[in-house]
Amino acid sequence: MKPAIIVVDMVKDTFKEGSRLPITQEGRSILSNLRTLLKESRQKGFPVIFANDSFMKGDFIFNGKMKSHSIRGTEGAEVIADLHPEPTDIILPKRRFSAFFKTDLDQTLRVMGVDTIVVAGITVEVCVLMTVMDGLCHDFSAILLEDCTASKNKEMHRACLSLYRDFALFPLLRVMSLEDFLKETAPSAGKA
Amino acid sequence: MKPAIIVVDMVKDTFKEGSRLPITQEGRSILSNLRTLLKESRQKGFPVIFANDSFMKGDFIFNGKMKSHSIRGTEGAEVIADLHPEPTDIILPKRRFSAFFKTDLDQTLRVMGVDTIVVAGITVEVCVLMTVMDGLCHDFSAILLEDCTASKNKEMHRACLSLYRDFALFPLLRVMSLEDFLKETAPSAGKA
Amino acid sequence: MKPAIIVVDMVKDTFKEGSRLPITQEGRSILSNLRTLLKESRQKGFPVIFANDSFMKGDFIFNGKMKSHSIRGTEGAEVIADLHPEPTDIILPKRRFSAFFKTDLDQTLRVMGVDTIVVAGITVEVCVLMTVMDGLCHDFSAILLEDCTASKNKEMHRACLSLYRDFALFPLLRVMSLEDFLKETAPSAGKA
Amino acid sequence: MKPAIIVVDMVKDTFKEGSRLPITQEGRSILSNLRTLLKESRQKGFPVIFANDSFMKGDFIFNGKMKSHSIRGTEGAEVIADLHPEPTDIILPKRRFSAFFKTDLDQTLRVMGVDTIVVAGITVEVCVLMTVMDGLCHDFSAILLEDCTASKNKEMHRACLSLYRDFALFPLLRVMSLEDFLKETAPSAGKA
Repeated sequence: MKPAIIVVDMVKDTFKEGSRLPITQEGRSILSNLRTLLKESRQKGFPVIFANDSFMKGDFIFNGKMKSHSIRGTEGAEVIADLHPEPTDIILPKRRFSAFFKTDLDQTLRVMGVDTIVVAGITVEVCVLMTVMDGLCHDFSAILLEDCTASKNKEMHRACLSLYRDFALFPLLRVMSLEDFLKETAPSAGKA
Repeated sequence: MKPAIIVVDMVKDTFKEGSRLPITQEGRSILSNLRTLLKESRQKGFPVIFANDSFMKGDFIFNGKMKSHSIRGTEGAEVIADLHPEPTDIILPKRRFSAFFKTDLDQTLRVMGVDTIVVAGITVEVCVLMTVMDGLCHDFSAILLEDCTASKNKEMHRACLSLYRDFALFPLLRVMSLEDFLKETAPSAGKA
Repeated sequence: MKPAIIVVDMVKDTFKEGSRLPITQEGRSILSNLRTLLKESRQKGFPVIFANDSFMKGDFIFNGKMKSHSIRGTEGAEVIADLHPEPTDIILPKRRFSAFFKTDLDQTLRVMGVDTIVVAGITVEVCVLMTVMDGLCHDFSAILLEDCTASKNKEMHRACLSLYRDFALFPLLRVMSLEDFLKETAPSAGKA
Repeated sequence: MKPAIIVVDMVKDTFKEGSRLPITQEGRSILSNLRTLLKESRQKGFPVIFANDSFMKGDFIFNGKMKSHSIRGTEGAEVIADLHPEPTDIILPKRRFSAFFKTDLDQTLRVMGVDTIVVAGITVEVCVLMTVMDGLCHDFSAILLEDCTASKNKEMHRACLSLYRDFALFPLLRVMSLEDFLKETAPSAGKA
């Protein structure tokens, strides 16, 4: 396995102090795991990609009840300080849900020799899931890290994961725990 | 509303006689509603698009447990006779889950003046959902017709829909019944 | 080299009897070479793809002086009888100039193990050139076959080729004669 | 006309002191016109987009004779100081030739209400031309500014333009002088 880590939408606008959005609380609960994931992945030399909402003011996406946020070029669309990206990480602004939508991520991953995307972040049933699925669309295996993803409540998180645990394309898509992922990619583990 | 109807993956390979796949049984249970949807939509002049799995032999997608099916150019990748497409319908072969993935559907819809995609078919948590979400990505409103979609069992169908009923972008995405959709688009209904 | 042959826009609407378009005359002058290319390529097992204009009525592209033609679903958008596609060839309808634009050709070529596209057909400075360039964009080497392509006059054909003979990315892009291509891919030729 | 200005590949690596590349000399000869274009366009409220080569080390594109340059994240991939982008301009890194290739520029332009792209920069027969053509592909009219574009010599510049002056889709694509473009968009000019 040649994995790349994709951390989705852990941006300042969602985690600003005083935010009472349910996703903010749930998102905070995975920060510790995300830090472990990033630390161990960098040690193993896995590429790290932060895929961040990067919306235009006046975009179609704000025609519904969702309020304007994560605007392109503003601080709110940056990765939160808690996860401080390293200079070698890739910051990938995205227009919509999936990290692949109208970006060149597929080619970037191929240049890097990646065969598996490992997706973490929020929210699991939208941007995380769409990134996972688009990874499969672009011929990458995908791992959805269950304890490194969140939704606006634990019930929705659980419901979403349950839909994809026994996926028709398994094991091209796997729902895994952080611990299992780290074990499988440990230097001592058998090579696939 | 200027809707187009997208019927996903109602193809012969999935519905062939003797198939014991759970999705076959569940898929059959929505045929009557799909026929109503198509009949009424054509009467109202809504474009109808059949988006069909159209896979290559040896494709990445068959590297997991999913068996080869709906192969490009074979009869198995055609729309089932029960839904007999009309000459004015669009048959859209698709390589992956979403009807928009590496197709020109977005431009086709814009040429037709469509502003809303109405998605039906199987399976709700994969190809239907990805089509719905990609519709939003391409600046179309989306309606997921709950009683014109199916999954491999009713529990998964219900679980999937529950994730998107109260969607952050509502009403850009709505989960609706066939009846409500037909009411809303009835000639006598107020025009949006 | 693992080449695939892409024949661009040799469709019935352009070659119908009585057409007095300059491109019709020039296009006819390469038919003999195209037949040789196809025959030899099939013998060598190279995939053959016919990329055909497939426009929608009312499309943006007809807002200028270009008349409506090669309409999706009509006979006029089919490959001319002179080049009679074989059942194993790929017929690829395209919305615009390049065979890659909003199609899944890049993935198709990768599944087939192709590393080089060999482009023929008309017109050299538009659809042929855009296909060549998009091939490079998708990480395929490209060969533009000078005597299997045409423009509306020989001067434009020559002028176009002269722009790319000494290309900055050479030899990722090469302008070649049919003879040289066939020699290079002859069974007795040294393997690259 | 609701134009947006796209300035292609005027980046530091190509214009660094001491560069003896022919394109450097030719590129410098259009700087004065580019400054006029930008100044007048900003006064008229036209969006300005700098589309810059942004390559990955080890990319396919460097497998030919082209040397590594304009690497993503380096200063060499930034717009030259002579053209000093304004904070409201859009800086669009691009992986390949066209500003539209695997970017979200098409949607950005639609959100801004743009109907015409006005393309300037280098080199005319590659990145400028591919951007122009991709604009047409995405349903935008396109203007290629003859005296705001350059190639590695004047002969190639002239030869390239001559291919597209009498384009089949005219006037969806027009080759124009800066003066004519400014006249046509002058406040006193008749509105199209």
